[in-house]
Amino acid sequence: MEQETVGLVVHAVGRTGVLHQLTGVIASHDGDITSVEILDNRPDQARTYFEVVVPNGLDGLVADLRALPIVRKVEIVQNLQKIYGKRIIIMGGGAQVGQVAIGAVSEADRHNIRGELISVDTIPLVGEQKLADAVRAVARLPRARALVLAGSLMGGEIEAAVREVRAQGLLVFSLNMAGSVPDAADLVVTDPVQAGVMAVMAVAETAKFTLERLKRRVF
Amino acid sequence: MEQETVGLVVHAVGRTGVLHQLTGVIASHDGDITSVEILDNRPDQARTYFEVVVPNGLDGLVADLRALPIVRKVEIVQNLQKIYGKRIIIMGGGAQVGQVAIGAVSEADRHNIRGELISVDTIPLVGEQKLADAVRAVARLPRARALVLAGSLMGGEIEAAVREVRAQGLLVFSLNMAGSVPDAADLVVTDPVQAGVMAVMAVAETAKFTLERLKRRVF
Repeated sequence: MEQETVGLVVHAVGRTGVLHQLTGVIASHDGDITSVEILDNRPDQARTYFEVVVPNGLDGLVADLRALPIVRKVEIVQNLQKIYGKRIIIMGGGAQVGQVAIGAVSEADRHNIRGELISVDTIPLVGEQKLADAVRAVARLPRARALVLAGSLMGGEIEAAVREVRAQGLLVFSLNMAGSVPDAADLVVTDPVQAGVMAVMAVAETAKFTLERLKRRVF
Repeated sequence: MEQETVGLVVHAVGRTGVLHQLTGVIASHDGDITSVEILDNRPDQARTYFEVVVPNGLDGLVADLRALPIVRKVEIVQNLQKIYGKRIIIMGGGAQVGQVAIGAVSEADRHNIRGELISVDTIPLVGEQKLADAVRAVARLPRARALVLAGSLMGGEIEAAVREVRAQGLLVFSLNMAGSVPDAADLVVTDPVQAGVMAVMAVAETAKFTLERLKRRVF
């Protein structure tokens, strides 16, 4: 119980130095911060969300946070990992991103009903540099597990970005399209609905589907 | 230039206290942290992403971060706000979430081409308490602007959660459905594709669409 990850929303005042003071209190309790979000950083309203594992009990930590002069309120809340779970990211052209989303959302629904927690995030984007930047940035999104590239032509800098994020452990799916991105992806799928379904199956613990066991890389 | 928001990825070692030390250096430079993510928090690899506004130049801050004994590397990266922008969140039953996503993704594509940055995130979920928790948690998601509830029956605790997040400034759209959620929403839309389109139009600066000017609340 005491090693559980707890969600805390801390309401404070001030702008610079707020996070430093709050994290100082958490560190003094040997708290391991697994996630943090700044919800508001106006001087009159600085709201910060923490997910933290506290070895020595939550009550002392909450009391010490409340004792800081800058803190107005501390709420204990549901943690986001428990609510939104793993994330599949779909990016590319609007028409194809929408079709991949149809497959991914329907398949995620089936697994979430059985106890999984998978959400599906999309961004319609055009342009080699913008897409390459967005692919690289997936590695900085919390809880992202797989990326689906949905378009008709992607290569160059996007291919380089795909190789970089795969090296960081992200699964990358590509539609069967022109350009060099399909060569760089873990799996290439022609039907966009199936691409979404397979991406969800690959990250769901409730599915019997692992890329390593597949004998083909293109569907 | 100096007031621009900068993205930084700091590679460090250690677990507890890392964030406290890093934010201490940022505070000593009067840096205003607008966003923060923990990318890894293993003892041998603690990667933290900051978006920070530095009034006195970036070079001194980066040099002082690099001078910390726990820091191995500091990278200057594209900030996530610039890449993924505003977020529309769609939640509910898989079949309907997918149709809302089709509308929202296609419409976001049209605005993103004209310079907007809107991404569309979804989670298929069932159950009153799970949905109520997920609605409340939207207020803790960075960059979330609008929520679309896509289902056939939602009420009770979900209605209470909708009223809470609206009070925190979130726009809430509901499909025309059974239960009390439509009464609590900003706008009720019968066609799921149109619900997605309208949600994007409502948050896009590139669209001439404001809820305050509408004479109807149900479509």
